[in-house]
Amino acid sequence: MLTSVYMIAITAEAMSGALAAGRRNMDLFGVVVIAFFTALGGGTVRDILLGNFPVTWTQHPQYIYMTITGGLATIVIARFMRRLHQLFLVLDAIGLVAFTVIGCNVALGLGYDTVVVVMAGITTGIFGGIIRDLLCNRTPQVLRHELYASVSLVVALLYLELLDRGASENITLLAAFSVGLLLRMAAIRWKLSLPVFSYSKARWS
Amino acid sequence: MLTSVYMIAITAEAMSGALAAGRRNMDLFGVVVIAFFTALGGGTVRDILLGNFPVTWTQHPQYIYMTITGGLATIVIARFMRRLHQLFLVLDAIGLVAFTVIGCNVALGLGYDTVVVVMAGITTGIFGGIIRDLLCNRTPQVLRHELYASVSLVVALLYLELLDRGASENITLLAAFSVGLLLRMAAIRWKLSLPVFSYSKARWS
Amino acid sequence: MLTSVYMIAITAEAMSGALAAGRRNMDLFGVVVIAFFTALGGGTVRDILLGNFPVTWTQHPQYIYMTITGGLATIVIARFMRRLHQLFLVLDAIGLVAFTVIGCNVALGLGYDTVVVVMAGITTGIFGGIIRDLLCNRTPQVLRHELYASVSLVVALLYLELLDRGASENITLLAAFSVGLLLRMAAIRWKLSLPVFSYSKARWS
Repeated sequence: MLTSVYMIAITAEAMSGALAAGRRNMDLFGVVVIAFFTALGGGTVRDILLGNFPVTWTQHPQYIYMTITGGLATIVIARFMRRLHQLFLVLDAIGLVAFTVIGCNVALGLGYDTVVVVMAGITTGIFGGIIRDLLCNRTPQVLRHELYASVSLVVALLYLELLDRGASENITLLAAFSVGLLLRMAAIRWKLSLPVFSYSKARWS
Repeated sequence: MLTSVYMIAITAEAMSGALAAGRRNMDLFGVVVIAFFTALGGGTVRDILLGNFPVTWTQHPQYIYMTITGGLATIVIARFMRRLHQLFLVLDAIGLVAFTVIGCNVALGLGYDTVVVVMAGITTGIFGGIIRDLLCNRTPQVLRHELYASVSLVVALLYLELLDRGASENITLLAAFSVGLLLRMAAIRWKLSLPVFSYSKARWS
Repeated sequence: MLTSVYMIAITAEAMSGALAAGRRNMDLFGVVVIAFFTALGGGTVRDILLGNFPVTWTQHPQYIYMTITGGLATIVIARFMRRLHQLFLVLDAIGLVAFTVIGCNVALGLGYDTVVVVMAGITTGIFGGIIRDLLCNRTPQVLRHELYASVSLVVALLYLELLDRGASENITLLAAFSVGLLLRMAAIRWKLSLPVFSYSKARWS
């Protein structure tokens, strides 16, 4: 189940990357590169930080082809994107939860400390978007906007807590996806966000 | 042969990095750092993604010294750069092909899947320039401009195809460099580029 | 001794990261992420470049908690930061020297060539600040401003020279910290800087 959700998720993330590349007027190659890193960059950073070699996607060429296809398809269907916006936000939220859970599982399998497991989940969930924004030369959106990284944190904590209490894999996944999707949808609907820290340059000597 | 071409290539890339640093008014240290990453950053990212430790340049201090020398020399000869522009573009194109071929070879030696081998070649070819642009806070040029990353892709595919057909190393290298250089020179001369994907923010609700 | 200095150093660096995040109006999560990378990003990049897995902080959860605490505490005490500016610059200088020495030690322990050892020291010293600036979408300050990376270079060279001559660990550390702090304080006081390389775009082509 998680694998097919993951397939949908990387395609959705690849499309989000392609749109960001389109806003920077990138060429086809740039679109594919950004699509790839948005979809698989989070897992790549996680694998490198955890020393988990070979990096996952190098062993699954189909993931690579899916991000390339997703990126190129976006160019074709970009004109309909406005109408698909709602669907897109749902797919992106599904991706966030799936990536987080998968990231936690990888770190758990390697025997890392709980706090590192949580960080591996969040890294997998949000770092693709951070790399996308770095390559598009803008301040990472996930560090500024309505609840996104926080959803990943809640999902990771909930997932580990349920596993720890011996809940079955199915129950745990169901809970993680339900809570994660509801929280993310609520954040979008009511523009929920964490408090912002504004520190003006002028105040620093 | 490939090694001496590689030496020329990293020096040329280091110089390109130093010029970009100069446009950002960096100090001597910043010039050297950017020169280093422009020249050796592509291979570094490739080695990390492939789990190929120790990273190549850590075992070849002479590469490090060459990038430092190239960076500092650029400051001295910057005033002549305008006149050397043509030569510089040729050296950069040689570097692109050499880096691509070397990157493919590293991934081949580690037994990776063909699509990963191609990506390793392209990564080695273009990622130095991407890191240079990130450190100089501008949108990576290779993802936007006239054929550059695409040349790396064509070279990688051609190289692997010829190897696969049992062509000798010399023939294969000759073909890769001929096609790569011609394509890159043609791209510069006639401003060939891939189609650009422009996606206006306004259209996204 | 070095460990307790290191604790102070990562807290100070985390605070510097939090302030930079505040200038970009990031939310609480963004502040913590930037604080973490500013404090531990240099060591992370060093460990990855040296193939030193598992990455140090994954084995020391207390370092992670300290950067989170430092980041959040900064939000609370931000209003007093102006008054603490002097203290802050001293702590940052201590951090620069401590990170440099620790980075050299890690590379020495892995048997790398001297030039790589020096680079590992400098990487540990300055890369946290570079990642902070990348995530905040500004040109890395350490590559442009008054002596900072150069102090790290001098400290690394002095440290290795003294070790090489058989000086005791205590003497070596004392010398590294004295010279490093004095140099950095002098650089701030008299705005010492390396020559800047300015290369105008207009002159190219």
